[in-house]
Amino acid sequence: MAHRIGAATAACDRPPAIAAWATAVGRHEREGPLGRLFDLACDDATFGRASWEKSESELVRRTMGLLLDKSGRRADDLDCVLAGDLLNQCVASTYGLRSFGIPVLGLYSACSTISEALALGALLLDGGAAGSAAACASSHFCTAERQYRSPLEYGCVRPPTAQWTATACGAYLLAHRGEPPYVRAVTFGTIEDLGVTDQNNMGAAMAPAAAETLRRFFADTALCPADFDAIVTGDLGAVGSELLCSLADAQGTPVRDRHADCGLLLFDRGRQDVHAGGSGAGCSAAVLAAVYLPQMRRGSVNNLLFLATGALLSPTTVQQGETIPAISHLVWLSTSPAPFAAGKGAGA
Amino acid sequence: MAHRIGAATAACDRPPAIAAWATAVGRHEREGPLGRLFDLACDDATFGRASWEKSESELVRRTMGLLLDKSGRRADDLDCVLAGDLLNQCVASTYGLRSFGIPVLGLYSACSTISEALALGALLLDGGAAGSAAACASSHFCTAERQYRSPLEYGCVRPPTAQWTATACGAYLLAHRGEPPYVRAVTFGTIEDLGVTDQNNMGAAMAPAAAETLRRFFADTALCPADFDAIVTGDLGAVGSELLCSLADAQGTPVRDRHADCGLLLFDRGRQDVHAGGSGAGCSAAVLAAVYLPQMRRGSVNNLLFLATGALLSPTTVQQGETIPAISHLVWLSTSPAPFAAGKGAGA
Repeated sequence: MAHRIGAATAACDRPPAIAAWATAVGRHEREGPLGRLFDLACDDATFGRASWEKSESELVRRTMGLLLDKSGRRADDLDCVLAGDLLNQCVASTYGLRSFGIPVLGLYSACSTISEALALGALLLDGGAAGSAAACASSHFCTAERQYRSPLEYGCVRPPTAQWTATACGAYLLAHRGEPPYVRAVTFGTIEDLGVTDQNNMGAAMAPAAAETLRRFFADTALCPADFDAIVTGDLGAVGSELLCSLADAQGTPVRDRHADCGLLLFDRGRQDVHAGGSGAGCSAAVLAAVYLPQMRRGSVNNLLFLATGALLSPTTVQQGETIPAISHLVWLSTSPAPFAAGKGAGA
Repeated sequence: MAHRIGAATAACDRPPAIAAWATAVGRHEREGPLGRLFDLACDDATFGRASWEKSESELVRRTMGLLLDKSGRRADDLDCVLAGDLLNQCVASTYGLRSFGIPVLGLYSACSTISEALALGALLLDGGAAGSAAACASSHFCTAERQYRSPLEYGCVRPPTAQWTATACGAYLLAHRGEPPYVRAVTFGTIEDLGVTDQNNMGAAMAPAAAETLRRFFADTALCPADFDAIVTGDLGAVGSELLCSLADAQGTPVRDRHADCGLLLFDRGRQDVHAGGSGAGCSAAVLAAVYLPQMRRGSVNNLLFLATGALLSPTTVQQGETIPAISHLVWLSTSPAPFAAGKGAGA
């Protein structure tokens, strides 16, 4: 069972474990500062397939296969997989997962997909509806460019606020038993829209969503940033990260000294031409797994708030002059499997 | 708490109630045989907005507003809304729900969205993670035509197997307490792909997914079609319905005498030019609520299996010669709030 805390947070009574994870990336991501941390890096961005969309599906298929291999499970050991991506009709996930025969819960939450998937999956386990579940999210630079922006061949110049969609996929196995980390609580995000219309500045559109979810989590739990070793956002990039820190300051819960952003970690902005940083549903899915989960398994990070952030625009809404709504779902990962009790702090 | 039954089904220990529902449709749907059953019918397909995408968002906004009105709740009484639609990046849901401030769990499961939403929502309530939740799915003929097929102005001729995307939205309120019906069990669908490539024959692509989910539900529960007053699919249309009945015959669980399809109920195929019937994520969302939930409230239908069916293609995958994968999630609705126990039958 889970139980509600405050207005917006659900805490797990038997926090499920992230029992295993797998990550795969492309060459640009391998050449970044985290390159050696990923399980699989493919220099060929096509992943051997004939179209970019098929390439991203192949990326998903390989990452899920790797998750099964690493965890020693068969596909039919999994009760469901919660998955999504950025492509129209989420076809990277559909075609990537098609061959496994696992029940699929399709999600769309843009670059916040992996925290929605981890949160929902943890609640399904804690509530008894599943014995094990996978969470998976992907993105691919080449599919995203042609769908959201312009054909690669066009060579469009990108402004400094633009981010670079990562070619990356992260897959997680949630199980009742396992080594740390555990999912202790989740806060689902509301749609926040402060009127940003520049699709080349999605960090600015997403920062208020992350700030609002953080605010609600801290209000519900009476915890504060100091209770956490790290507060990790999805892909706010340089612009959005600065905005989030300012907003958190204004909310009286400064996070600057423990905040990190997956979009800023993935690339070396000085050396790699990614402007404001990385983005994409696969960016935070791969970086959380590659960087932080091993630290939590080793015990060097004990409590971590993970907020993947998603901009919920489409090319059509941009063309129609709409503003960009955003969302951010929060997952509290901990090395402690103890159910959270209000007033007791975060614990180790 | 929920508990697992067999390999693929989860049963609710405290089956949540569908405490309220709301439906809205366009003129073509109002002129069909169910016209007077919908809460709201708007003769103006634009719903007063300047683009088709904004029209569909407005349809979602009005339907959700109606759900709150009918149920006597405020938006902040709801812990979350699980929602999705057919548009790229699910923008009908995002922009339609933006003003409510309710945490949003974005789903993508094509025309199976509403059964995924009801199933997940019920499990979140039963597992203690939410006290109340809304489920919502929409579609709009004009957005779907231009996104999936060709511009309306083109006047493309449609083959007999084609279906008509309904302009419709259905929204549901799940609560711990309430009058019937209750969600007693759910079976999440697997992705089935038997090689259909004709995007004008999606009923044929989807029927195997519904048959497979039905097969798994009956295998898990040891129930049979005779335990149910109605077995209602989403939008298989004429072609897909016949295929499903044949597949169910072959599986030894004939459903023909109690099967109905929302896509066939919505329109009068003799009088309205819809070829194989209605479709769209909003079709089954509106028809289930308008037709069957009142019957269950009155007690004239006691046990009903609802399987919305989704074709997970995109225009891009069709252009790339891919086959059409499909999925169907199952929800068992009952006038009995008793937890299901294997070997005891469906009960009244």
